Amino acid sequence: MEDYLERRKQLIHEDRARRVDAPGARTLSEDEVHADEIVRRIRAEEAISVWAVNSGSVFDYDPAKTTPNVFPGMEFLTARETIIKTRLFEIISKMPKGGLLHAHLDATVNARHLLKLALEQPVMHVSVSSALTSDNIGDVLPKFKPVPKENVSDVGSLSDLSYHPGDWIPFRAARDNFSESLGGPEGFDKWVINALMINPIEAYQTHNTTQKIWAKFTSVFTVSTNLIRFSPIWTEYIREFFLSSIEDGISYSEARINFWYRYMVGPNGEENIDHRGFVMIFGRVLNEVKEEMKRQGREDEFIGSKIIYCTLRFISPEELEWYCEDCLALKQEFPHLIAGFDLVGHEDSLRPLIDYIVPLMRFVERQKELGLDIPFIFHAGETLGDGTAADMNLYDAILLGTKRIGHGFSLVKHPKLMEICREKGIPVEVCPISNEILRLTSSMPMHPLPILMNQGVRVALCSDDPAIFGNMGLSFDYYQVLVASEVSGLTTMGEIARDSIRFARLDAEEKERALALFEKRWAKFLQDVIRDYAQ
Amino acid sequence: MEDYLERRKQLIHEDRARRVDAPGARTLSEDEVHADEIVRRIRAEEAISVWAVNSGSVFDYDPAKTTPNVFPGMEFLTARETIIKTRLFEIISKMPKGGLLHAHLDATVNARHLLKLALEQPVMHVSVSSALTSDNIGDVLPKFKPVPKENVSDVGSLSDLSYHPGDWIPFRAARDNFSESLGGPEGFDKWVINALMINPIEAYQTHNTTQKIWAKFTSVFTVSTNLIRFSPIWTEYIREFFLSSIEDGISYSEARINFWYRYMVGPNGEENIDHRGFVMIFGRVLNEVKEEMKRQGREDEFIGSKIIYCTLRFISPEELEWYCEDCLALKQEFPHLIAGFDLVGHEDSLRPLIDYIVPLMRFVERQKELGLDIPFIFHAGETLGDGTAADMNLYDAILLGTKRIGHGFSLVKHPKLMEICREKGIPVEVCPISNEILRLTSSMPMHPLPILMNQGVRVALCSDDPAIFGNMGLSFDYYQVLVASEVSGLTTMGEIARDSIRFARLDAEEKERALALFEKRWAKFLQDVIRDYAQ
Repeated sequence: MEDYLERRKQLIHEDRARRVDAPGARTLSEDEVHADEIVRRIRAEEAISVWAVNSGSVFDYDPAKTTPNVFPGMEFLTARETIIKTRLFEIISKMPKGGLLHAHLDATVNARHLLKLALEQPVMHVSVSSALTSDNIGDVLPKFKPVPKENVSDVGSLSDLSYHPGDWIPFRAARDNFSESLGGPEGFDKWVINALMINPIEAYQTHNTTQKIWAKFTSVFTVSTNLIRFSPIWTEYIREFFLSSIEDGISYSEARINFWYRYMVGPNGEENIDHRGFVMIFGRVLNEVKEEMKRQGREDEFIGSKIIYCTLRFISPEELEWYCEDCLALKQEFPHLIAGFDLVGHEDSLRPLIDYIVPLMRFVERQKELGLDIPFIFHAGETLGDGTAADMNLYDAILLGTKRIGHGFSLVKHPKLMEICREKGIPVEVCPISNEILRLTSSMPMHPLPILMNQGVRVALCSDDPAIFGNMGLSFDYYQVLVASEVSGLTTMGEIARDSIRFARLDAEEKERALALFEKRWAKFLQDVIRDYAQ
Repeated sequence: MEDYLERRKQLIHEDRARRVDAPGARTLSEDEVHADEIVRRIRAEEAISVWAVNSGSVFDYDPAKTTPNVFPGMEFLTARETIIKTRLFEIISKMPKGGLLHAHLDATVNARHLLKLALEQPVMHVSVSSALTSDNIGDVLPKFKPVPKENVSDVGSLSDLSYHPGDWIPFRAARDNFSESLGGPEGFDKWVINALMINPIEAYQTHNTTQKIWAKFTSVFTVSTNLIRFSPIWTEYIREFFLSSIEDGISYSEARINFWYRYMVGPNGEENIDHRGFVMIFGRVLNEVKEEMKRQGREDEFIGSKIIYCTLRFISPEELEWYCEDCLALKQEFPHLIAGFDLVGHEDSLRPLIDYIVPLMRFVERQKELGLDIPFIFHAGETLGDGTAADMNLYDAILLGTKRIGHGFSLVKHPKLMEICREKGIPVEVCPISNEILRLTSSMPMHPLPILMNQGVRVALCSDDPAIFGNMGLSFDYYQVLVASEVSGLTTMGEIARDSIRFARLDAEEKERALALFEKRWAKFLQDVIRDYAQ
């Protein structure tokens, strides 16, 4: 039996040898071991006290009698209110997270905060395609426009019988005058928020397939873009992204910005702020936040932020050439801000990377000509398909030399590609909650993350579109990953956080500083966990 | 670009080099290529015409207004009625399947057929714990007993107000007299069937977690066992298992029989038929069916069937010793029928293999002493756990020398174990529909099967418990796998079917004959596909 147990231990070690937290790979400090034990104990306790409670026999989202089937790593949208009450979440919230490497800038700020920013802009207006009633309020979406030049309504409410569809009402007035029968101003907020987020009924019932939920997902961007691409809001939106990230322990980020829109709207209502303007605002707010952190003596909590230039996967290869040139010009002017290039949008339904090989290879050549370095950081394999065009994007992303893979959900099906990722150090930006809400996985225990980790493919945990999913910061994603595994522990989360810095598009010096600052915070965090949670 | 496409093709080939249908691994016949193309075309057509239809906006299982979200490989229990109408299913139904290597005998016969068998036994009785009403009929389960010696009811209906709970009513009378207000005899059938199968509301709503659905699953066995473990029914049940398997193109099977019950009930109501009796009945029916097939000139369609001896994972290690000795004795008496040994039951909640190492190693020694060969064919890793005891069962199954792995759902997380399976030729008995209904995966596109296949781990598709899931035969499982991949085609299905013979517990000569017969049927099948489905 002793011999058997020894062989068993050996086999387990070999099986886990490629993990970032491989047994015996490095000697753990006493604090690391202790804090890891504490977290495992609390996780085990809460698996019973929080996640094993008996639920009713009928699955029903009526808030008055919601009794979903609960378990650790269950559907985020129904679990969220429970998660935030747990001790484990309390711990994870305080954990330094390193970098956030995959987030779409225009979906990074809490929808309620965006609403607040919009209400602060007297020139923001709203319209609907038909006067709101209790019957249609679930289907009619708000449309926004700053400083409309015509069709400004002379009625003050979107639910007024005399409201002329399409006419513009000042946003604040529309809220103040929102019909009591539709819930008054609070009903107005609820209506707007519902258009800006995915709710559990959509994710888990009516739109419970990747294809359907993407329809809702796309609709959110259509609604929010006219709020966000208004430079006074955009400015404050970026600031809030930085500040709220810092509060969650994120010290660095690489924001994917969608440059498909060639202009955004300026303060006077003219759509005349070009891509240079986008980046200049980003850079200005970045500096202001750095200054502010310094003033507070917290400069070590914020390394900075960069931009991954994105356009959408539905453009023609010819149109892509324009965007590549545009990106080159921005890189020349803002070399410290432009960190990479990507194509975004629903891979299952839009054009595959193979359609763009010629302009993308040309883009690489042009970089050489100009002495620039704008690495590809492609979305690829964000799909359930096996051998579909979206799945095949992984081959092209890797052949094109992508430095990281966005999502790579289907990468686990590809042994050779995983080998390449492991050997070349191409990490995957894994977005656990996004994958679940967009129905690639039904819950965290079904998520393929452990497969990647055990294959030695490095990962960074990312939030993707937290404004739409409600997974603000990175704490929720770390939490969901941590409760769904008994192999991973707090030490594993620390290694993943370190990888989010190691694989960031920072130069060697920046990276060294970022890692040193991380270690300092991590050591302090471990001490806090031991102080506050040891029995 | 040409160079790029060449490198791309090369990379794809390398990535798929370990698949059973690896590109270029063998030269395909003209018929194979043609039939494969036909099937891919029909699959693509039906992906649109059948599986992309727009469904309503509310997910609702009310049969009057069922509008589930449909897609290829969707939840089987809501897809079944649609599947059987497709041309692709028509083709797959006619496909020779090779062997069925993973099925629990007492869940292999259509529940309606079991009901019919029970109604043919005048001595079969039924009781309930409380008289049936429209309020409790969804919760009260039927209990069966052949030839009860006491508490025989003098009322004729389970819903009679004067019915005394626990009293026995003849089964046929209980059906004939079933209250009209509960649906009469059809309502009775529906009530019994509901206790013998998992329905979509349970799988996808009320019991939508592995843990909860296992409660229903276990309840089914508790109900059905008293029908099946009555030797006159058991005899006809086995016959129907063989005959219906043959009709689905299955030419061989290895049935897992649960020997945890030491006796079954004989015709006179005495519980006195021992394990020798179990096996003798199995062997007798086997011979009768072989004779019958010969009479029909169809002997080539049925190679035979063997037994995998099983007991349950909740017994003590000491109790296991008794079962091991019992299995040895049966193997000595029926060497051609006993093909392997397994431990069954819900891995997440019952005892892990590690608890049984000592008696299992002793079992191996005893086989050597007696000159017997009863290979382990263990269930292992039928779990969503990562590093849980059920997941760890995989290490023990492999260290103990298992010849195949039952389910191995979590094997994809274990690179070293997949390597061992690949190198030692340990295949996985993959049960796609079972995994989905037992909530390890939400649908076929989420199933890890392509990961195993691409890693070069060989698989056999299996139905597990078709009586409970409604996936009779193997056609449904092959269908669900085929529609969820664009890599796999008809050729792939053929290779998997061949593997189900290659990895069967047949001796060399039997295997050679089985493979030769398969090839003959396969060639004929390809011709039929080309004749009937080419445009």
